[in-house]
Order: sequence, then structure tokens, then C-alpha cells
Amino acid sequence: MEGIDLYKRVPKSDLVLLATKAMMAVGCNAERAEIVADNLVEADMRGVYSHGIARLQRYLTHISQGIINPANDPTVVFETPVSCVMDGNNGVGQYVAKKATEKAIEKASMSGIGLVSVRHSNHYGIAGYWAEMIMQNEMIGISSTNTAPLVVPTFGKKALLGTSPLAFAFPSDQEDLFMMDMATSVVPRGKLEVYARNQKSMPDGWCVDESGHSTKDPDRVLKGFVNKSTGGILPLGGEGEDFGGHKGFGLGLLVELITAGFSLGAYSGETYQKEGDVCHFFGAIRLDVFGNTSTIKSHISSILQKIKGSEKADGTEEIYLHNEKEVRARKKALSEGVGVDEPTHKALLDIVGKYNLGTVI
Amino acid sequence: MEGIDLYKRVPKSDLVLLATKAMMAVGCNAERAEIVADNLVEADMRGVYSHGIARLQRYLTHISQGIINPANDPTVVFETPVSCVMDGNNGVGQYVAKKATEKAIEKASMSGIGLVSVRHSNHYGIAGYWAEMIMQNEMIGISSTNTAPLVVPTFGKKALLGTSPLAFAFPSDQEDLFMMDMATSVVPRGKLEVYARNQKSMPDGWCVDESGHSTKDPDRVLKGFVNKSTGGILPLGGEGEDFGGHKGFGLGLLVELITAGFSLGAYSGETYQKEGDVCHFFGAIRLDVFGNTSTIKSHISSILQKIKGSEKADGTEEIYLHNEKEVRARKKALSEGVGVDEPTHKALLDIVGKYNLGTVI
Repeated sequence: MEGIDLYKRVPKSDLVLLATKAMMAVGCNAERAEIVADNLVEADMRGVYSHGIARLQRYLTHISQGIINPANDPTVVFETPVSCVMDGNNGVGQYVAKKATEKAIEKASMSGIGLVSVRHSNHYGIAGYWAEMIMQNEMIGISSTNTAPLVVPTFGKKALLGTSPLAFAFPSDQEDLFMMDMATSVVPRGKLEVYARNQKSMPDGWCVDESGHSTKDPDRVLKGFVNKSTGGILPLGGEGEDFGGHKGFGLGLLVELITAGFSLGAYSGETYQKEGDVCHFFGAIRLDVFGNTSTIKSHISSILQKIKGSEKADGTEEIYLHNEKEVRARKKALSEGVGVDEPTHKALLDIVGKYNLGTVI
Repeated sequence: MEGIDLYKRVPKSDLVLLATKAMMAVGCNAERAEIVADNLVEADMRGVYSHGIARLQRYLTHISQGIINPANDPTVVFETPVSCVMDGNNGVGQYVAKKATEKAIEKASMSGIGLVSVRHSNHYGIAGYWAEMIMQNEMIGISSTNTAPLVVPTFGKKALLGTSPLAFAFPSDQEDLFMMDMATSVVPRGKLEVYARNQKSMPDGWCVDESGHSTKDPDRVLKGFVNKSTGGILPLGGEGEDFGGHKGFGLGLLVELITAGFSLGAYSGETYQKEGDVCHFFGAIRLDVFGNTSTIKSHISSILQKIKGSEKADGTEEIYLHNEKEVRARKKALSEGVGVDEPTHKALLDIVGKYNLGTVI
């Protein structure tokens, strides 16, 4: 969940239509354009604005630069009854992810478990979107991706790891009771941009500068990304080992190995050289491989509710399970419209004009 | 890796013999006693002293209290070709873990993947021991367990989660190149004990007191555990959400769901009431479900070596991959003897005397 300076609330359908038409204007067929549009607007509805429709311009640019090849289909490289390796052929990330998610569900439907590792893909939007798609089939949904290099190894100074998210979604008795979608870095890049825009200094433990040591200056880190100099975001747990930074580093390595390692693809440090070359991982585990589905769902709900309902820290109001804030934000967006900030609104109007989309927002 | 005040170096075989005889003296058969002894001494050799032979007394006490039932065998509750749920019947944790690990390997040998969730078990030692046992079969090894309640949810004040480790071991071209064994808390309980012993104050962001807010006083937190009052260790990422504490909280919940959730067992908050009732999870994934084993191993090694070999932060000497320090410590322990501190040495002599073991250290 992130905040924005709200400028306007726009009905979901208007944003989806705009994004669909824009993606079709640059060479995507309807199926591809629609999955991108739905994925982006879903992120905004949940309050994950860094992965919302504000990214549309970046996708259009990537298509014009040949990083994304909108006409390419993903292909199967290798498969067994429980697994598959796919090549995204640098097509549209969300379309590759949809096909790989469907493959994981298909394998799990037949064999109980399906694991799919993907190479040569592109940015696939929020990781949790795919984990949830799997979860809707009474399966544990797992989704992960590597990303552009932004995160520095513990005791290193060069950003070679991604902010690489891990997402897990568990079916339960209640609506989306546990769906965690976490970057393995301490903060996402979008957070630095917010601090830079507001000329605020960051807390120690978020980022390192060119020396590999903590900095409070967001501009310095962001400039480093542009210039490809050293410095970057720290892994979850911060600098060094005192607060467990080596654990976040290890989770980042784990993501590289299940995405790029299994698929023989590019690790984060080698993505976006000519094409995207991003790697993903999807997992589907049928809940009934462990017994009766509804019994397990009830037990999962009961564990989560005991923890949620436990004593709160003095002065705090609520213990949030992962996805609760997002489910509430989504409901509000569905009834009142999706929040858009002024720069994004302006960028969208520019896109409407440039591609002559004829849509209104 | 943890430090100790080294008192003596003891040959591995002497420590293993002592622990084996002690466990046999309280009712374990040879197979059970040997796996406990090997698991404990392996932890010491790797420098994970909190999970080493210093724990032996606690196991002996647990057997005398009926928390561990040394004669009980684990049983299979439910299984499919890719999965199994086992009941440990509150037997010896390491023996239950060995049987469950063998089951995961057996399933993966047949089906490519094997996932095993276990209820009613006891402390199983270091998580990584079981992940490595799986890895030695050209499989990805996964091992996790819930624990006694020590960790407070984000915005909570009651310790209901465990320090619940997650371990992942990847086969690769080089010796144990990536084996991560991480508690999902910011620090282990053992670290508080070290600070308390040395009358040092802890950094903010490790623990909360009865109010649910940060404290620097390790005694206060340790007393809270004994009195079952509020307060405890924070999840990885620390207090609140600013440094990603909610991510560590989510990883802790993930462990509860794959261990207790899948097996219909007790979550950490309900362990150790009469018997141990600890829950575990093991996963084995054959590397060749993604293609040619040696090609994938080489690719994994090459990704890890690029990151390890990258520029170091100013003033630091090395970027450590997960398990490198432990492999070096183990080699040293094998050649020079296993490090033991003075209180542990004394406690072991007491055990030798009490049970008339006739061994020397």
C-alpha cells in the first residue's frame, strides 16, 4: 500500500478501456492489451500505485525500443507432469505470465503440483495478481519475478539484485485472507522517488551510496541508477548483518535461482540489456494434496484469526493480515472510482492525444 | 554464525558419542540417539552454537517431562504421489524430521516433487540440516518448522509466532554453494541471551517490551518469555512497517501455514502446552524437472559467482554467500575439534556424571 496525492477518482472501466486501447495502438492484440490493462488497474485499485496505470507510458516506450515484442508468443522449452520451463520470447510480460500461470494451474490440476519457470519475459505487473489467479482454483498460489538491478548485496556496493518480489496466496474461508506480495528489498524504488519529490531525507538502512554505505539522500541513489554507478537499495533487513540484511539478500538470491536459475535465463544484473530478459516463477499446489480442502481452509483461517485478534501494541488500532488493506482499498475503488494523481492524469491525457484513442478520463 | 567464548576444542566423535549415550540413557534407541547427536554436533561445527550440544540438557528435560516421547514412531496420516502429511506422535524431533525428509526424497524420486507437512513433533535442530540432506540427492531441499512462541506480530504485543526458520539448499557445481537457513525473526532468542549475559543494551528494532514498543533491555524481554507476559522479538524488518517488519511477519505466517496449516497441527502460539506439538514442513524438488541437471547446476553457480565476485562496500573484505562461513567453520572444527564454551563443558560433564555415561570430553 502506498499513498498518492489524489487528484481525481476515475471509474475502473474508463482506465481499463484507455490502457487497452493504448496497448492495441502499439501492436498488441485484444487479449494481450486486456490482460495488461486489467493488471495495471488492479494494482491502482489495491493502492499499489507504483505498479499501476502510471506504468503504461513505460510499456509503450519499451515496445517502441524493442524491449517488449508485442507480437511474440511464449513457447514451452521443457516440461514434465509437475513442471514446465517456458521462453517468453520477450513478449508482453503480463501475457507471458498469464500463459505460465495457466500452465501451473493445468499441471497442478493433473498432478497436484505445478511449478513453472520462465525466461526472456518482461515486467509482469504486481506479483500477487498471478498468485491470486492460482488461488482461485483452491490452490496455494506462488508468484515471483526478478527485475531490473536495483538492490545491493550485503557487504557489496553494486546493484545486481532485483527488488524481486515473492508472492504467496492461500485459499481460506474468508475473502483473500492471506495473500502476501513482498519485495525482497527493504523498500521499493517508488518510495525513493516519493522522498526525492518531497525533498525529504530517507532513514538510514534503506539505501547505500557509491561507497556501499548508508545514505539518507534519495537523489544520489536515483542518479546512480541512471548513471549505472555503484549504490542502490538495501535488502530487507538493511545494511550489514545486525538487523538481518543478509536474510533479505538470501531471499533475493532465492528469487534469482527459481526464476533465472531454473529457466537458464538472465539474473537481474543482466536484464534490460537489449530486450527485457526478465525471468519469472509460478507455483500451484492443490490444497487437497494435504487432505480435505475445506478442513484445511478452516484451520488456516482459525490460525490467522487468532493472530489477528491478539493484543495490539499500545496506541495501535489493528493487526493487519497481508492483503486486508488492499482488499479494503479495492472495494473503495470499485464503488468510488480509482484514485489517480495529477502527473499520472496528465500523462494519460497525453497518451490519449498521441494515439488518438478517443477515450475520456 | 554466532560467537562463543571458546573454552576447549573437542573432537567431533567424542561429542557425538556423549550425546548418543545420553539420549540412549533416557530411552531412545540407537537410531534415534544417533540422529539427535549428529544433528546437534553439526550445528556446533558450523558455528550455530544456539542449536548445538548445549541443547542436549533441554532434550533430556523434555523427555523427563513427557514433552518428547522417545519411544513413539511417526505415522503417515495422508499421502498422494507428490505429498504426505505425517503425525510425529510427539516423538524425538530429529527422528521425526529424518523420516519426513526421507519421505519427501522418496516422493520426489518417483514424482519429481515431494512436499511433507508434519504435526505433533518436537524441536528438530537446525533447519538447514534437513534441507542439505535433500540437496544431496540433486534436489532443491526445503525445510521449515514452527517453534515456541517468541515473536510479536507487526502492531501486536503478544509473542504468538515462532522464530520459525526457512531453509533452502540448492545443488550446484561448488560445495554447498547456496544453503540459506534463516529465522524469520530479526534475531534469534540466543542473541538476547548473549546480550543479557554481557549486560549490554540491544539496538532498537530487535525486541518490544510489554507495551508492544521497542526496548533495548534484553532481561525484560527474556523475563517476559518466562512469565508469559506480553513483549517479544520482532519479525525480520523490525518494528512497524517502515523497514519492512510486516514482511518478516508475513514470512512468519507463511511458516505457520505450511507447517501447522497443512498438517492441521498447532501454530507456534499453541505449542509446548503439554507435549511439544511442533510442526514442520519439508520439500524436495528434483532439479531435472526443469531440464538437464548439470546445465542448471552450472547456471546456478555462475549467477552466484557473479554476485559474490562483485564490487565490495568500501572497507569490507568479502561478500558472503549463504553457507560459506558455515562450511569454513565446519572444516576447521573437523580438523581442530569442535569449539565448546565453559558453561556447556560443565553441563556436559554433569550429564556424563548423572547418567554414568563413562565418556570423556
